[in-house]
Amino acid sequence: METKPEFTWSCPIPVKDTPQVLMAHGGGGRMMHQLVDGMFRQAFRNDLLDQGHDAAVFGVGAGRMAFTTDSFVVRPLAFPGGDIGSLAVNGTVNDLAMSGARPLYLSCGFILEEGLPMETLWQVVRSMRRAADQAGVSIVTGDTKVVDKGKGDGLYVNTAGVGVLEHALDIRPSSVRPGDLVLVNGDIARHGMAVMALREGLAFEADIASDCAPLNGLVRDLLDSGVEIHCLRDPTRGGLAASLIEIAGASGQEIRLEEEKIPLHEDVHAACEALGLDPLYVANEGKLVAFVPEKHAGRALERMRAHPQGAEAQVIGRVVEARAGRVILNSRIGVARIVDSLSGEQLPRIC
Amino acid sequence: METKPEFTWSCPIPVKDTPQVLMAHGGGGRMMHQLVDGMFRQAFRNDLLDQGHDAAVFGVGAGRMAFTTDSFVVRPLAFPGGDIGSLAVNGTVNDLAMSGARPLYLSCGFILEEGLPMETLWQVVRSMRRAADQAGVSIVTGDTKVVDKGKGDGLYVNTAGVGVLEHALDIRPSSVRPGDLVLVNGDIARHGMAVMALREGLAFEADIASDCAPLNGLVRDLLDSGVEIHCLRDPTRGGLAASLIEIAGASGQEIRLEEEKIPLHEDVHAACEALGLDPLYVANEGKLVAFVPEKHAGRALERMRAHPQGAEAQVIGRVVEARAGRVILNSRIGVARIVDSLSGEQLPRIC
Repeated sequence: METKPEFTWSCPIPVKDTPQVLMAHGGGGRMMHQLVDGMFRQAFRNDLLDQGHDAAVFGVGAGRMAFTTDSFVVRPLAFPGGDIGSLAVNGTVNDLAMSGARPLYLSCGFILEEGLPMETLWQVVRSMRRAADQAGVSIVTGDTKVVDKGKGDGLYVNTAGVGVLEHALDIRPSSVRPGDLVLVNGDIARHGMAVMALREGLAFEADIASDCAPLNGLVRDLLDSGVEIHCLRDPTRGGLAASLIEIAGASGQEIRLEEEKIPLHEDVHAACEALGLDPLYVANEGKLVAFVPEKHAGRALERMRAHPQGAEAQVIGRVVEARAGRVILNSRIGVARIVDSLSGEQLPRIC
Repeated sequence: METKPEFTWSCPIPVKDTPQVLMAHGGGGRMMHQLVDGMFRQAFRNDLLDQGHDAAVFGVGAGRMAFTTDSFVVRPLAFPGGDIGSLAVNGTVNDLAMSGARPLYLSCGFILEEGLPMETLWQVVRSMRRAADQAGVSIVTGDTKVVDKGKGDGLYVNTAGVGVLEHALDIRPSSVRPGDLVLVNGDIARHGMAVMALREGLAFEADIASDCAPLNGLVRDLLDSGVEIHCLRDPTRGGLAASLIEIAGASGQEIRLEEEKIPLHEDVHAACEALGLDPLYVANEGKLVAFVPEKHAGRALERMRAHPQGAEAQVIGRVVEARAGRVILNSRIGVARIVDSLSGEQLPRIC
């Protein structure tokens, strides 16, 4: 049903005529249509987008759907392992997957700053298309606004997404039960440190690539294997700590983590130490935590490890009955401490 | 099913403690949760938002759905007749309605500039809730980002929306047929001139209020009356001209407009003249054009006029067979001219 374009990967807007985004590109006139039709529709092409109406219309079967949104303001726009485009697609794909949905369609809302190089915009658009293909979703509707120079930061992008639930599970924090094991699909803190190392010009920056990746394939494999998933969450802003604290709070359960089980690459660890950051609080963009009953944990771990996004999967903790939801970390040296919310961020504008 | 909150309409974040938005409000930590839980969840409260997960999950019946998005960057944030909040809700509600869908759920993605007064944010949030109630939709999922001072303009907001189609019509440009009549539900160019007059400090600014309003009720009335609607469009950015040029192009038909039939209030006309603007190209936010077969036009006009959003509805033109899609305006003085695309905008950042 989807038509994949023959598509040259060179910027379809003649850069020598309009090397930069102008206010007129957001004005609803000819120049906006040149940008929308010439670049966005070409790059994202699919049957629904080709409807060319204010909204994309598609058929659905009876059942449950998921709907989510995220805006992306990462600085700089590109970093080792990804850019704002791949982040914007994978971020929303992953939010849908965390509700147990199969992601179907994405929207794309650009806020462009006057003066943005047209070539930069094209890189981002191309990256979004690649990421959408990789995740198996289509960008079916969009919007473009341009703001004056000095009122943005190159570009911001919002994606929203819809998906369908094709199972009967209630995958959410309130489904977490005492006895559940907590799994993570790989090493933590890479996205945040990739961006931060680049910003700070750290010498080891070249070694750390963001983990930015779609997680819907991994979730589908878990569901197909019959694992009874209680909760999923992608620990992005605020890192593993923020996600687990939120789930503990919402479920009223206590989560006990084993620090030594949490995968952390040595280069990321070193970068965190150099900047005085705790990797538990650093953003990931290709990681998920899964809460599953103990009897299903072995199968879940096996399925995760068989998937490219889960080769380093580990069981990192356990849910125990408690009077108040909280997260306890048993450290490498055998000391238990409460994992607390930070008041703000360690890392601004990381996604 | 939806729970309407008892809700005090005073800012739920203690303004004396945090009078302004800080970078930490976007960081995924405690301050972000205070803002999201304390303000957004309180104001938008509904069962789906209360799920508190990454995505909202809801049941749907088999059929067709619509999905759309828009970002809003209007400057200034408030203007006579509305603000960025009511605009953001009504804009997406109307895009859904223009596809013939009944709008159900909206997402809300904020990009806040560090230093934004908390009270300003609260005004916008409150306005969104009011507009959502008026349109009969719920804001069920959201996201908040904060960017550094000088990298935004107070706040930008994206809304995406989903709705259901409950009829069998194909409401889109390619359904337009020779012989169709073109109806508009009221006077044009008010939104653009309300914003522009305010920006320019024109003396008559107080007289012009934006037409910002939800159009889904009006569309529902038309559908309920059995009118065979061929196409609907809300002429926002680029005004009536841009919308009709686009429909003419997409349908390959010629649209002939009668200038004297197009409702235009005298104060708006005067403001346009003072600023040298053509009202045909000025944005509306509570208007739609409807293409209907001639035999249904009388009933359509009657239903429109019976609705609060359609009291001044008029038949303003007709579709004729043509070899190339274009729009012709028969002027008040009896001269016919082609209505052309502008290259850029007359009015930047109008929505």
